Amino acid sequence: MEKFEERTVSTKTIYEGKIITVELDDVILPDGKPAKRELVRHPGAVAIVPLLEDGRIVLVEQYRKALGKSMIEVPAGKLEPGEAPAVTARRELEEETGYACAELVHITTFATSPGFADEVVHMFAARGLTRIEEPAAGDEDEFVELHEATLEEAEAMMEDGRIFDAKTAFSLLWAKGQKTGR
Amino acid sequence: MEKFEERTVSTKTIYEGKIITVELDDVILPDGKPAKRELVRHPGAVAIVPLLEDGRIVLVEQYRKALGKSMIEVPAGKLEPGEAPAVTARRELEEETGYACAELVHITTFATSPGFADEVVHMFAARGLTRIEEPAAGDEDEFVELHEATLEEAEAMMEDGRIFDAKTAFSLLWAKGQKTGR
Repeated sequence: MEKFEERTVSTKTIYEGKIITVELDDVILPDGKPAKRELVRHPGAVAIVPLLEDGRIVLVEQYRKALGKSMIEVPAGKLEPGEAPAVTARRELEEETGYACAELVHITTFATSPGFADEVVHMFAARGLTRIEEPAAGDEDEFVELHEATLEEAEAMMEDGRIFDAKTAFSLLWAKGQKTGR
Repeated sequence: MEKFEERTVSTKTIYEGKIITVELDDVILPDGKPAKRELVRHPGAVAIVPLLEDGRIVLVEQYRKALGKSMIEVPAGKLEPGEAPAVTARRELEEETGYACAELVHITTFATSPGFADEVVHMFAARGLTRIEEPAAGDEDEFVELHEATLEEAEAMMEDGRIFDAKTAFSLLWAKGQKTGR
């Protein structure tokens, strides 16, 4: 039994989409009172911090409909059912950036929005990058542009709002820590 | 016009909940093809990194139904309509931890799940913490337990999975950077 656990009385599926499923749960709170919980189910994702030999980071720019703007982010993508996160990471790195990597190291895994969603993102660092002659194509509804930025350039992108997401903000702090040998 | 912008043809509201609204948009991609976008609308949130004089960080443990487990996180909460993020931050800090702060500084703002949600989290650092004799109560469906942890203790909580969310992972890296004067 988890601390302050909420017992599920019933689960109602509101929407089953291509990417997300929305549920409305009736729960019993630790004090015995009833409450409702709105939950978004998501398959989970990976994000990769691709580090070039000279210290630059490979980033991708894409339009994010939810936010209504283009954003520059570390490469990322959804897990396919049953797929190991490291496999997803190598696939997404190739599809989004055209790079293969010699070394792929798990940094951490975190939930992005624990208040309403079960999405977790597995973060990886990729080193030993080499360009693939004919990289696999990504999803046909994905349009991405590559940016290879120094840490300072990426920090400036965060200052001016072109970088604006949690996983990339985390990645830049992490890369800075690596650089200063913390 | 944003890069790779997707033109909205129609928006269908699938679900209007207490916290989230779910939309299904028909869009036209940059290459002229149609696509669908599943979007979760969220009011946005704040998170606070409360730093005690001795360097410990004030954290809160609560049950997260979406993940099915209790998690230790930096204090956080949803924006009320029209409320300035700094006001929300002081309110949530008081309700969740019983602390007031002399100094509240904006660190950054990021989107948590840009692939499907518009939720942004405004991150603040709170210093000059003093205990409030009779703190305002939080939401009646919220049960939280306080943890005051050194950075090393918090990093251990991340290692063993009790800390498992993006905003707290970011907060710990940020606090470490502050400590080492980066």
